[in-house]
Formats: sequence, structure tokens, C-alpha cells
Amino acid sequence: MATAGDPLYQQLADRLAAMIRARALRAGDRLPSVRSFSRQQRVSVPTALQAYATLEARGEIEARPRSGFFVRARAADTVPTPTTPRTRPRKTDGAELDPFVAVLCDQADPALVPLGAAVPGEDLLPVLALQRSLSTIARRSPATIARYHAAPGEYAYRQAIARRSLEWGCNLTPDDVIATIGATEALSLAIEVVSNPGDTIVVESPMYFGLVRMLRDLRRNVLPVPVDPTTGVDLDLLEGALRRTRVAACVLTPNFHNPTGSLMPDAHRRAVVELLDTAGVPLIEDDVYGDLQHAGPRPRCLKADDRTGNVILCGSFSKTLAPGLRAGYIVPGRFYEQVLAVKRARTLGGTMPMLAVADFLRNGGYERHLRTMRRKLAGRVMRMREAVAEAFPEGTAVSRPAGGFVLWCALPPGTDALRLFHRAKEAGISVAPGGMFGTGFENCVRLNCGYAFTPRIAAAIRTLGRLAR
Amino acid sequence: MATAGDPLYQQLADRLAAMIRARALRAGDRLPSVRSFSRQQRVSVPTALQAYATLEARGEIEARPRSGFFVRARAADTVPTPTTPRTRPRKTDGAELDPFVAVLCDQADPALVPLGAAVPGEDLLPVLALQRSLSTIARRSPATIARYHAAPGEYAYRQAIARRSLEWGCNLTPDDVIATIGATEALSLAIEVVSNPGDTIVVESPMYFGLVRMLRDLRRNVLPVPVDPTTGVDLDLLEGALRRTRVAACVLTPNFHNPTGSLMPDAHRRAVVELLDTAGVPLIEDDVYGDLQHAGPRPRCLKADDRTGNVILCGSFSKTLAPGLRAGYIVPGRFYEQVLAVKRARTLGGTMPMLAVADFLRNGGYERHLRTMRRKLAGRVMRMREAVAEAFPEGTAVSRPAGGFVLWCALPPGTDALRLFHRAKEAGISVAPGGMFGTGFENCVRLNCGYAFTPRIAAAIRTLGRLAR
Repeated sequence: MATAGDPLYQQLADRLAAMIRARALRAGDRLPSVRSFSRQQRVSVPTALQAYATLEARGEIEARPRSGFFVRARAADTVPTPTTPRTRPRKTDGAELDPFVAVLCDQADPALVPLGAAVPGEDLLPVLALQRSLSTIARRSPATIARYHAAPGEYAYRQAIARRSLEWGCNLTPDDVIATIGATEALSLAIEVVSNPGDTIVVESPMYFGLVRMLRDLRRNVLPVPVDPTTGVDLDLLEGALRRTRVAACVLTPNFHNPTGSLMPDAHRRAVVELLDTAGVPLIEDDVYGDLQHAGPRPRCLKADDRTGNVILCGSFSKTLAPGLRAGYIVPGRFYEQVLAVKRARTLGGTMPMLAVADFLRNGGYERHLRTMRRKLAGRVMRMREAVAEAFPEGTAVSRPAGGFVLWCALPPGTDALRLFHRAKEAGISVAPGGMFGTGFENCVRLNCGYAFTPRIAAAIRTLGRLAR
Repeated sequence: MATAGDPLYQQLADRLAAMIRARALRAGDRLPSVRSFSRQQRVSVPTALQAYATLEARGEIEARPRSGFFVRARAADTVPTPTTPRTRPRKTDGAELDPFVAVLCDQADPALVPLGAAVPGEDLLPVLALQRSLSTIARRSPATIARYHAAPGEYAYRQAIARRSLEWGCNLTPDDVIATIGATEALSLAIEVVSNPGDTIVVESPMYFGLVRMLRDLRRNVLPVPVDPTTGVDLDLLEGALRRTRVAACVLTPNFHNPTGSLMPDAHRRAVVELLDTAGVPLIEDDVYGDLQHAGPRPRCLKADDRTGNVILCGSFSKTLAPGLRAGYIVPGRFYEQVLAVKRARTLGGTMPMLAVADFLRNGGYERHLRTMRRKLAGRVMRMREAVAEAFPEGTAVSRPAGGFVLWCALPPGTDALRLFHRAKEAGISVAPGGMFGTGFENCVRLNCGYAFTPRIAAAIRTLGRLAR
């Protein structure tokens, strides 16, 4: 403990440490900036900085590039991250997931504590700004509501996406982009253009339930390749699968994969693009979480390493702006003409939502909004992780996602997550049991961290921990 | 000519006839109601009624059930309606229409007098009321913009459509209906569920260009069966076509077919439903114009005569409310489960537009709006018909649609409508040349009557007439 004789920076560091112990500052909280802290505490900037450095050296806080200092999640630090079994991929028609359709419906029950469905809290979305933007368009030209566009869609919208593509390491023109009704339409267009019913599509394991259900509805088989929460999709197993099985396409989520949160290591990216290109297998990239890194620069897209047009990039503003706008896009590469023809034959898009998104992007509102959203999500995920580390049984492993808003928890072997799901539901809590994401994950649960970490959610995590024991 | 000695009703009738000759009252104008006229002219109601009856007997005006008295289009009365050649249907992949894709783009050029694309004038659409409805939803619950629904779509929307189905002679429940992104998605879902690439689909001839392009994009062949502007689709030729060719589905527009405006005679309706049912060929019904009759009751849907679920009804609010809302629907009958699965795999729908439409329908705004829109469209079509009759060369035939907002004009044999299209474009006028609608219509043009009949449009019709000579 510091005494009056200790240097000033150490006294400050000790007082902050006491606040952390007393939970006046909680895991994931951001500390004031060094400049603010020096002003608030009436100390010099170097003293304030030294106080923070001391706490960082003690492991109480951590610096994140361009974001500042945060209270570390210390309980969570001792928790391992889950690993995905490296089992050899086996083709399936996805029928083993059918019993989970009912579970999927339960997840959206608004009466339950919302840890099931992977959705951002509505407080994170700029709904008022978007409504204002829509109102402005309506006032300026009421008849805009009557307008619609055939593929490729509103020019201003495609232009805004092309400009943003620099952030992903691409340099697209508006002519590379086709507007879609959300990323769902983008994914289904990509799949239906490059494959036929009965074909086999490589997906990730654990796999996003919605994608597998889509593939089942479109009568495609799936070949799930393991994705590790830390090291991403297993390249050896992927290569072997491509060698052994005739595959029509491969769907990958390099940035903040759902449910593991994995970020594909940079070293793997060019390799995976080249592997699929050489194999002549179209690579469908699902980038809906790409804008939601918790710190640092926005990760690149696989599309950025695409030299032959073999990568079909699918994205949307559903996770970052508002799902109800249905503002998605597809960058079909060498499949452009085919995607355009099928899209044109299937749906036309309303003009208003596209113009509202374009307006938001053009006027800088999107970047400002993302900065806030990323910071809040980082805090929510970190707090949830800390709470899980404290409450879940010894032997639980929890993912450490660098973006997005879900946690992937592997409970001790033998835990029946489906039973946990049912008992949690009785206790008024919604979770996503691991079996929804493929075989081999029966002891896992996915937790949504999109909502503010309220006492209600904290209590729910403690209840889940009790039920899991 | 009336003199002071004539009865009062005859003096009144003569004065009205003079107004008509002087174009103070023009073809298609509605006269004041009998009650208003009697009050305005300070005569008794029986006298006013007798004046109108006199004019009606002279053929100057006509009564329309539940709508009142209208000035007759006398020049137009002498013009015949076009007939469609009863040529034996021949299968095609639609490639002969490809050169018209460029024409299609020209049609939407806002610098031209808009007689080309078939769109209602924006003044006819309740854009302000819809914007108000959207604002109310946004104010009450801003986060509605973040919400979306998977198939079958918002319950309130499906409920509103089910309630309206009584108007079409159906009695649907919300569970019969799936919300779609406009009628385009409904049609493409229907086609893709009941057929495969390479299959043959029966369409109408002349045929709606958008449908043929959709079928071409989806790699279906088309088998066009003649539709007469007056007698509708030719049942004998349809029956023969079904007997000779293996057909996967048949797309029909019984109500105000585009471009002929034909309304399928009641006597044919049950026959056509039974014919296709017996042949085991799914009947896809396109009803986007069904709400736009010019007078009298709303025509029934073929779906109303469907006893086996073989009819797939496709509709939308794009022609009557606002195309930009993309509010469509499909009633898939016995194909419900398949349509649901494919729709679910392809697109999710935003909540706000669906709630705005449901609100408009529930609160009676839609019926009030339709009454006004129908009356205005009837007037616009009638005036355009009169202007065409006066300006186009001797030997021109013009359709007499009972609903919708297009006129189908057959110019004298030998007229090159594509040349007329190009010369009209140079003169700042957009029209749709007959070749867009199939082979055998090279002397035809379709005229959009969706806009108010302004002096600019009147002048454009005179110019077209001059160019056509």
C-alpha cells in the first residue's frame, strides 16, 4: 500500500487499484485519457502517464491502440480459450440441425434475458440519426418513397460502398458492387450462381446456423471444416477436404466468425485465397462483422487479396446501422454478369433506405458511429467474459474475440448444453446451445454480448453458472 | 338548337352540349352529380336528371355505375380495338427481345414526355400519407427501423392482405400469405419453385417485357399464347399448346393485362383454372393491376376459383401505393412449403414498410385512396384514347381498357413502330414500341396514361400522330 512518502504517481496508481478492487471501476471500463486524468487530479501529464504505466505493469489495466486505457478482466485472463477438435470434415445435408429450428425461435422470445440471438442492442444503433436522414429525404422529395431501382441499384449507395472499400484493403468502383436486400440475399445469390441443388459447399465448423439453414433450404450439402477460435479455419483440413471431395464453393467468415469470434491470421489470408483459386472453387466471403473490431484498424477482406475475381464478397449494414433497412451488397468478381442477371430477375430495391445509408456514409456519420459502437461492444464483451470466468464451472473455456459481439464458451466435457438451454429458458434466460452450430459442440454455448451489461444480465450469467454445475 | 320555348331540361342539355363542343367540358370529364347540378342551376332534381338523360340518349355523355355521368369520348368511339393474331404458339428463349433492353432504358429518361414506361404519375400515389404513417411509426418506436422479419413476414401485413382478399372473391387467412419484396420477388419465387432452367413457361402474347426478361435471366423458355384486348387469353390456343408442349407453368394476368388492358371474361375464368389444374400445370396469377378497375366492382382473382391450390397468386402495392416500399405478397396454395423455404433462404424483409402498409389498409385510407385513383385513371385513359383517336392515322386501332393505365395502339399495317420510337425520342417523347412485347406487334405502340393529361402530353400525342403518318 502506498504511503504519503511514496511518489505521487504511485499514490495515484494505488488509489486506482483500490477502486478496481472495490469495483468502482469494473473490468472493461475505459479510464479517462491521460490528459483528462491529469486535469481532474491536478497532476502533471507525465505523472498521470506514469500512474497508468505503473498499473499496466502490474497487470491491472491495459492500453489499446487508439482507444486508451482499460481495466483488465483479470478473472477472464486465467480462463483458457476453447479449441475446435481437428476432426476430418464429413459431408452432410445439415438435417442433424433441424431439431434446433425450434430453439432458434425461442431465442427471439422478448420475455427472456437476450443472450441467445446474436443481435446488437438497439441502443448501439443510430436509429434516430437514420430516421432523421429518412425524414430529410422525405421532406425534400416526398415521392422518393415511390422510387425503386433494378440491379445493380442506386448509384450513390454503390459509390459510398466503393469509397469505403479502401478500409478493407480493396479499391472498388461503383460498377463492381450490386446492392442487395441485406447480406442474406447476397449470400444466397452467390451460392445459387456458383452451385446447383445437390452440390456440396464448404462451410466453417462451428457454423453459423442461418447459413446452414439457407443451404438446406436451397438443397445444398455442407462440408464443415474446423475453425479454431484463435487460429481460424484449419488450412490443412480445408486443403484435404478440397482434394477428397468435389466442392462447388466455400463460404468463409475471416473477420469475427460467428460463433467463435475468430479473426483469420494475416499469414493465412493470401494462402486461403490462392488455395481456392488454384482449386477452381469460388470463395464466398461473409464480411458482415468486419466493421466491428474492438480496437486497432479495420481488418482486411479476403477480397483484397483476390487477383482473379474468384472471391465473392458479401456484406451489409445490418449489424452496424439497422437490420430493418435491408441494406446489403455483393461484390461478385468474375461472377458479376451471372449475379446481375439473377438479382435483376428476383428483386428490385426501394430507393429511400439506400439513399439514407449513402447519406450517412458520405457525411461521416458512419465512422463516428462505428467508433462509439466498437468501444461499447469491446466493453460489453469484456465484461461478459469476466462474468463468465467468475460464474461458470472450473474447466470452462471462453473465446477472446477481437471483434463482433458473441462469446463462444466450451463448458467442461460432458456438460449437456441443450439441457442447460432448457433449464435456462425455465429461468427466463435465452442462450444458443452449441449443437446448433454442428456436431461436436454439445458442451458449448454461444452468448450474445450485444446488450449493455446490466445487473439483470450479470444475474443471468450467475444463474447460468449455477445451472451448469 | 334549343329556343326559349323548349322545355327547361332541353335548354340545359343544349347548353351542356355546346360546352362539350367548345371543349369547356372534355372527353372523360365527370359532370356534377345530379343533386349538385340541380342546386347549381336552380332547377329541380327531376329536371336535372332529365337533362342528363337527354344528353345520354344523344350519346354525348355516359353513366358509369356508382361513379356518375361522364363526357363521352366520341372520336374514340369510332376507333376499333386491336385484335391479336391467332397464330399458333411457338416456343422461344426470348432472345428476340434482347435488342429492346436499350429501349427499356430509354423509356425511363426523365427528360422525355413519359408515355413509355408503365408507371402511375406520382401525383396519384399517397406519398404524403405514407410518409406520415412512417413518421408516426418512427416517433412511436424509433427502433422499428432496426427490425426485420423472416418469411412469412409481418403478421399485421399478412392480416391486412387476408382481410382484403374478400374483395377478390377469396377468403384467405394470414397463414396463406407470404410477404415478398414486391411482386417481382413473388413471381420469381413462383417460377423458380415450380420449374427448372430449360423448362418452358406459358406466357401471354403480347407479353409484359419485364416477365420475359425475368424468364430469360432465369433461363426458362417461353411459349406465348395470344391475348386479345377484348376477349382475353385464347383458350383454344392455350389448350392446344398444353397438349402439344411439355409446360412447367403458366403465367396469366386476368385483370388488366399489360399491355392490352384485357380483362378476362367471367365465363373463361373457371375454365382456365380447371384446364390448368387438369393438365397438372401450376397457374401463376399476376394481379398487380387488379385494384385499378375504372368503374364498378373490383374484378375477382383466378385464385377465387381455385379448389386444389394449383393457383399461385402474386400481387403488390407497387402500382397503387408506392413502388419504393417493395410491399408484395404471394399466396402459394399447394406450393406453400416450398415457396416458404426458398423465400426464407433468400431475403428477409424490413418491418417499417410492412407496418406502414398494414396501417394504411387497416385505417380505411387505402379504399379512399383507390376510389380517387380509379376515377383519375379512368379520366386519363379516356382522354388519351380520345386524343389518339383524333391524332393517329386512319386505320389505327386502340384498346378500350376497363382498368389499369396503358393503351395498346395498333397502327395501320406496315407502320414501323421501332422507327416511330426513334423519331419520337428525337422529338422528346418516350413510347414503348410493340416489338418489345413479342413478334407480330411491330406496328403497335403502348402508351402510358398514368400522368395527368396536360397540354404537353396532348401536344406529344399530336406529334406522334404526325410522325406516324
